[in-house]
Amino acid sequence: MLGPINMDHLRSSIRAWLLEDMPHGDITSQNITESRHSVEVQLIAKESGVICGLDVMTMVFQEVDDLIELNYSVKDGDLIHTSQVIGHITGPLASILMGERLALNLLQRMSGIATMSKLYSDEVEDYDTRIVDTRKTTPGLRSLEKYAVRIGGSHNHRFSLSDAVMIKDNHIKAAGGIPTAVKQIRSQIPHTTKIEVEVEDLDGLRTAIEAGADIIMLDNMTNELMTEAVAITDGKAILEASGNMVLERLKGVAQTGVDVISVGALTHSVKALDISLKFK
Amino acid sequence: MLGPINMDHLRSSIRAWLLEDMPHGDITSQNITESRHSVEVQLIAKESGVICGLDVMTMVFQEVDDLIELNYSVKDGDLIHTSQVIGHITGPLASILMGERLALNLLQRMSGIATMSKLYSDEVEDYDTRIVDTRKTTPGLRSLEKYAVRIGGSHNHRFSLSDAVMIKDNHIKAAGGIPTAVKQIRSQIPHTTKIEVEVEDLDGLRTAIEAGADIIMLDNMTNELMTEAVAITDGKAILEASGNMVLERLKGVAQTGVDVISVGALTHSVKALDISLKFK
Amino acid sequence: MLGPINMDHLRSSIRAWLLEDMPHGDITSQNITESRHSVEVQLIAKESGVICGLDVMTMVFQEVDDLIELNYSVKDGDLIHTSQVIGHITGPLASILMGERLALNLLQRMSGIATMSKLYSDEVEDYDTRIVDTRKTTPGLRSLEKYAVRIGGSHNHRFSLSDAVMIKDNHIKAAGGIPTAVKQIRSQIPHTTKIEVEVEDLDGLRTAIEAGADIIMLDNMTNELMTEAVAITDGKAILEASGNMVLERLKGVAQTGVDVISVGALTHSVKALDISLKFK
Amino acid sequence: MLGPINMDHLRSSIRAWLLEDMPHGDITSQNITESRHSVEVQLIAKESGVICGLDVMTMVFQEVDDLIELNYSVKDGDLIHTSQVIGHITGPLASILMGERLALNLLQRMSGIATMSKLYSDEVEDYDTRIVDTRKTTPGLRSLEKYAVRIGGSHNHRFSLSDAVMIKDNHIKAAGGIPTAVKQIRSQIPHTTKIEVEVEDLDGLRTAIEAGADIIMLDNMTNELMTEAVAITDGKAILEASGNMVLERLKGVAQTGVDVISVGALTHSVKALDISLKFK
Amino acid sequence: MLGPINMDHLRSSIRAWLLEDMPHGDITSQNITESRHSVEVQLIAKESGVICGLDVMTMVFQEVDDLIELNYSVKDGDLIHTSQVIGHITGPLASILMGERLALNLLQRMSGIATMSKLYSDEVEDYDTRIVDTRKTTPGLRSLEKYAVRIGGSHNHRFSLSDAVMIKDNHIKAAGGIPTAVKQIRSQIPHTTKIEVEVEDLDGLRTAIEAGADIIMLDNMTNELMTEAVAITDGKAILEASGNMVLERLKGVAQTGVDVISVGALTHSVKALDISLKFK
Amino acid sequence: MLGPINMDHLRSSIRAWLLEDMPHGDITSQNITESRHSVEVQLIAKESGVICGLDVMTMVFQEVDDLIELNYSVKDGDLIHTSQVIGHITGPLASILMGERLALNLLQRMSGIATMSKLYSDEVEDYDTRIVDTRKTTPGLRSLEKYAVRIGGSHNHRFSLSDAVMIKDNHIKAAGGIPTAVKQIRSQIPHTTKIEVEVEDLDGLRTAIEAGADIIMLDNMTNELMTEAVAITDGKAILEASGNMVLERLKGVAQTGVDVISVGALTHSVKALDISLKFK
Repeated sequence: MLGPINMDHLRSSIRAWLLEDMPHGDITSQNITESRHSVEVQLIAKESGVICGLDVMTMVFQEVDDLIELNYSVKDGDLIHTSQVIGHITGPLASILMGERLALNLLQRMSGIATMSKLYSDEVEDYDTRIVDTRKTTPGLRSLEKYAVRIGGSHNHRFSLSDAVMIKDNHIKAAGGIPTAVKQIRSQIPHTTKIEVEVEDLDGLRTAIEAGADIIMLDNMTNELMTEAVAITDGKAILEASGNMVLERLKGVAQTGVDVISVGALTHSVKALDISLKFK
Repeated sequence: MLGPINMDHLRSSIRAWLLEDMPHGDITSQNITESRHSVEVQLIAKESGVICGLDVMTMVFQEVDDLIELNYSVKDGDLIHTSQVIGHITGPLASILMGERLALNLLQRMSGIATMSKLYSDEVEDYDTRIVDTRKTTPGLRSLEKYAVRIGGSHNHRFSLSDAVMIKDNHIKAAGGIPTAVKQIRSQIPHTTKIEVEVEDLDGLRTAIEAGADIIMLDNMTNELMTEAVAITDGKAILEASGNMVLERLKGVAQTGVDVISVGALTHSVKALDISLKFK
Repeated sequence: MLGPINMDHLRSSIRAWLLEDMPHGDITSQNITESRHSVEVQLIAKESGVICGLDVMTMVFQEVDDLIELNYSVKDGDLIHTSQVIGHITGPLASILMGERLALNLLQRMSGIATMSKLYSDEVEDYDTRIVDTRKTTPGLRSLEKYAVRIGGSHNHRFSLSDAVMIKDNHIKAAGGIPTAVKQIRSQIPHTTKIEVEVEDLDGLRTAIEAGADIIMLDNMTNELMTEAVAITDGKAILEASGNMVLERLKGVAQTGVDVISVGALTHSVKALDISLKFK
Repeated sequence: MLGPINMDHLRSSIRAWLLEDMPHGDITSQNITESRHSVEVQLIAKESGVICGLDVMTMVFQEVDDLIELNYSVKDGDLIHTSQVIGHITGPLASILMGERLALNLLQRMSGIATMSKLYSDEVEDYDTRIVDTRKTTPGLRSLEKYAVRIGGSHNHRFSLSDAVMIKDNHIKAAGGIPTAVKQIRSQIPHTTKIEVEVEDLDGLRTAIEAGADIIMLDNMTNELMTEAVAITDGKAILEASGNMVLERLKGVAQTGVDVISVGALTHSVKALDISLKFK
Repeated sequence: MLGPINMDHLRSSIRAWLLEDMPHGDITSQNITESRHSVEVQLIAKESGVICGLDVMTMVFQEVDDLIELNYSVKDGDLIHTSQVIGHITGPLASILMGERLALNLLQRMSGIATMSKLYSDEVEDYDTRIVDTRKTTPGLRSLEKYAVRIGGSHNHRFSLSDAVMIKDNHIKAAGGIPTAVKQIRSQIPHTTKIEVEVEDLDGLRTAIEAGADIIMLDNMTNELMTEAVAITDGKAILEASGNMVLERLKGVAQTGVDVISVGALTHSVKALDISLKFK
Repeated sequence: MLGPINMDHLRSSIRAWLLEDMPHGDITSQNITESRHSVEVQLIAKESGVICGLDVMTMVFQEVDDLIELNYSVKDGDLIHTSQVIGHITGPLASILMGERLALNLLQRMSGIATMSKLYSDEVEDYDTRIVDTRKTTPGLRSLEKYAVRIGGSHNHRFSLSDAVMIKDNHIKAAGGIPTAVKQIRSQIPHTTKIEVEVEDLDGLRTAIEAGADIIMLDNMTNELMTEAVAITDGKAILEASGNMVLERLKGVAQTGVDVISVGALTHSVKALDISLKFK
């Protein structure tokens, strides 16, 4: 359900996060005999947004105790609204309390990202332009955060330094120019790997096209310059607009005809979506 | 320098976070021969605040390449201001670029927490009241986030479900009352472990004191009620105010005489402090 | 059943211990075809004591082969007597032989500790005094050994250097006195953490009370001195008697009115309880 | 120095054992600023015996802090006597306190085993008979305990179920006799692996010799029977005496001419050798 | 079924190998919705040989998805022939595609080794001589490769440097002769461990016999010399022929009467057996 | 030196491979006292080829013992010839013997691949065509084997199922055609990821071009068909020839103008290059 991510790694991360919150169990709940009894709990939205992370919440609780059962009335990507009961959880009280903090923490954060992702992608829905994330994710949570971006309707940029080439100003300076940098790198990488080059003006753009860049990042350009860039490129490379891409600018940027707009804010400044457990 | 935290775990987390960002190295930098040359980089504050995480930044870069050298002109806890050069980094260009993203991500987040922690603790500096954090931390980052809280002048609450007892309403309901809950738990835990009980009114407070609670959490009480609670308790337990403790309320709450005010916002809504690398 | 301990860690320890005893399987049993047949085995007490570790034994055997079934006629904490059949195990012969050594080793050791723990706690059952263990446990087995102490009726001291403060003579010397040491530490630790101070005479006791110590360890004091200490303290701190607390002294020490007596011998000099498997 | 053991595993065990004793550091020592100062400590024998585990003690302390320096005036296997200063340790006070408990625990246990091992092996020094240990070792400590046995002058039996064949009564019953059992197993194992067969009488012995057993265990036989067994065997197999081999019987058993006597007590009932640190 | 091997290690190796081939899942199959549908696949031999690794193939696929079911019409060790359908696999298309590459890679390699092993062992089936493998195995695959050797009818030599002694020319030179080397080593190792000595001529052989070697390796000797060696040894040690033991020589070497012939080629130069999946 | 690969993973693999070969050390070498003395050893080529894996060999030996020093007179990628001394190793005899087997195993295999890689790439050196490897690598060794391919002058295909899309016949059938498959996948993957489509005829080719495939694999086509395919494609996609690409066909295939030829044999059928250690 979570798509092509590393499930092994996710499972062991969840185990590690649970241990962070209870290295020797829950000395409150587990020392009250009656906490072994089963209870029923509601999962309730405290504000409106895009829900994301339900499968992860299930994994958290079932890692704590496979007696816990979860039933959701929504699925990842659905819109939820304030006060909506979006699921029911039943199981031993102690077990639910042991998983509650981590489960909510992840669900709230992922839903917050998906909600923001939808806000940004909706803004450009009339254009053939993708909103994409960046590498400014929380250490250890990148897979989940990038999944939440997709659930919200935006897209992902490269996952890491290993899966696509991004030639920046420092690289160009070191190599002695865009052509040399591209040539050196292309000779070492598979033909299945794309090369992106960052440029700051139209001269750079022309050199990058010539050098055969697959993607060209237009760094901090005005809409006027980007419109010109789109004309010059004429489909020979994917164009990505980057730098201070706040919500208000998106439509204007999309109108220039660029293919991709990258937005660090999607994962960098997460406002959690308020969701809580209500014990009956 | 980082105090009594699990250094083994931190080191292996850093290794894991680096791998998240480059499972097979940096296919851009490492495929440009000249990137092996040494460069010098400045660490610059882009806004004012409390710096925190310098030792962690050092660990990140030296994990990438022990040829990287870092020199800071400030130390954790110092105030920094916009445009201040707070350190110099020298080493191979490729190595610095490989560690840059993770190092900044951690430094910015930790400094953001320390800055907020100072803001909150300064607010009550004239009172004998501690501001403390909660368990609403980022999965996998709790040690570092709690360290940043301390660096900023606030204090920590319990680290996890395992190191102090916190009896909440669900526990009380399950056990059939505060006295039974306290008694059951005390018989199982070491004499070195404290018991905190959450109460919602003064009756609960009196019962908790009677039961021998070491700490009593006053949940969502008015300042008037809390003033009364302080009088009733008369030093027989530590009193902790909790629930919607926004910055504006802190002074008033401190004036009631409670010992501790817990603030989820210290780690829950982190605004990163803007700090960046400048390559010469 | 095992209470609030780290089950993840226990499971992986069991796996590691099994591998220690058969890194490449059992080259005897697994090379005899007929060893795959099911057999029935009795678990028999060869001497009297308190049984402890049955759940751990189950985990060991089921880690080897989930076809193994175990049924016990007693539960952890029960008294067992010589020749009593306390359980039945059925499963493939090879699998049972592969788990036998480790399972018995743990069961015998844990039962030995529980038996001794009961002996010590029974001695002071007429007093309001706890017998507690120390950190002199077997490397890697602390959780299980401390669990066995609880099962036998005694209690646990702090689990580790991380969960409660214990200020000893070297700390006091380094810090320049009890008051400074307590103050330095209290400013760094959560309000949920207790501070214990070790004192050697009544002057030290008075200083420690003044400094606000939660627990005070009376190191190697005579019963007379301890009686005096109880009077001086008057409930303002928990008093712990320590140093050469042999069985014969316990009643006398309890009569002084101290709250806690710590006994290294509970885990330090374990005499295994003889229990064995009998193949029909 | 520790001979052919798994150093990787030992190092990671030491790390795990240290974490067991301080999952989040030492909240006492590390919160006293002056504990960073260097101190000098003596390692003193409190009773006489065979010292063993010095290299392991060094590994423990240097894992805590590589600023710690250890100098010993004895080496593993040497006799030490009450009050003898056997080493000096210098380093930061906090670091030494953090390693002290684990280091002493291991050193005392290993020295206890080595001392007992010497006692047993000395008893048969006039005979061509080896004293050997069994698999009744502490889970997780087998390598160190078997090393201590060797240091004391006794020898090791097989390390685990994987490195030598031991055909016991249950195996023989399952296979339908010694010859079938030996034949089945020999066809599967390398020619470099020995087969030991347990027998209870002289008929069994003769069958085992015939079947080509490399080693034959004489289970619970009288000295008279064993003398006869030696004569019958006439060097065609190694003979091992087993079952209730208490110290007092050893000489008599050695006189029968058996090659090996196995003694569970070498590791099963460890009496730690009293050794302590003395801070100046 | 796989015999006495380390199943824990195998399972975690399989998990690691799967991650090598899909660190973030299969971005093709998992992004096609219809790939979740179940399909049926045939396992087909493309050439004749000895099948080996079916249980491992099952483990691979069930690690990917426990909805995958496998049914084989043959078992490890059976002869298979070109075009024979040897099994059926059903399960979600995406899951089967995700395990296919690793599963076939292991099955083909193991079957290749088993096929070669049978070829070599058949050659000497009329003699009382074992064909054995060496330590020239693929790093990380030794257990599986040695299992495949056994399945094909040949046998294993020692598993590693830890489980049997092999004294080579460099050891002899260092120790100052065979007798000293054997004596030094025998005093340290268990009586359950065999000693093999490598000799290059009949003088060496006689010295090794005298020193009590359990096994003697005749290194690069002619058949004539080996015949003489067999006569001299007269059953007092196991004789192993080694050095350039190509298939054509085996019968002649076996005729000399040596007990064991070691053949690096069994695992060193693996020709995979062609087996493939056919999707209906 | 090894380029952008996962060094953390390589180091821990080397440690695991060493443990496979000596779980409890080397009971021969480590039990001969004189084996601690230093010796000097030559690394000698026994046949001609391309050397590859020298840095890995260094890592192996230094993992065993950092007293071992290695000096090479060649570097990865250099041609070596029979009898050439290509390096010197000095260090304790026991340490060198403990690393010898693994080091040579890796060096011989990697050099074998590099040698074959050069043979294949030399064949097409007059054409603008790349020879690339496949996913038919040894489980656990993919990084090293793909590095060896690059050292020999050929190139890499995608590293795994996660870093580039490859739509095969089963995917096309499941999705209901190439256009749907491409569209579904493109909507989920980053704009930085390439899509390759496998086609069997020119109709498929035209559909794939239309659908916007970045790379098109021509599966088992004749040279004539491929020549036509090149003309049709006209630079709109990268063309990859695949299926039975034996050495003899390469020139002819390159002449058709395809961009890439993929060759499973590069890693699938490795013939080790004979290199050995010579102790003086």
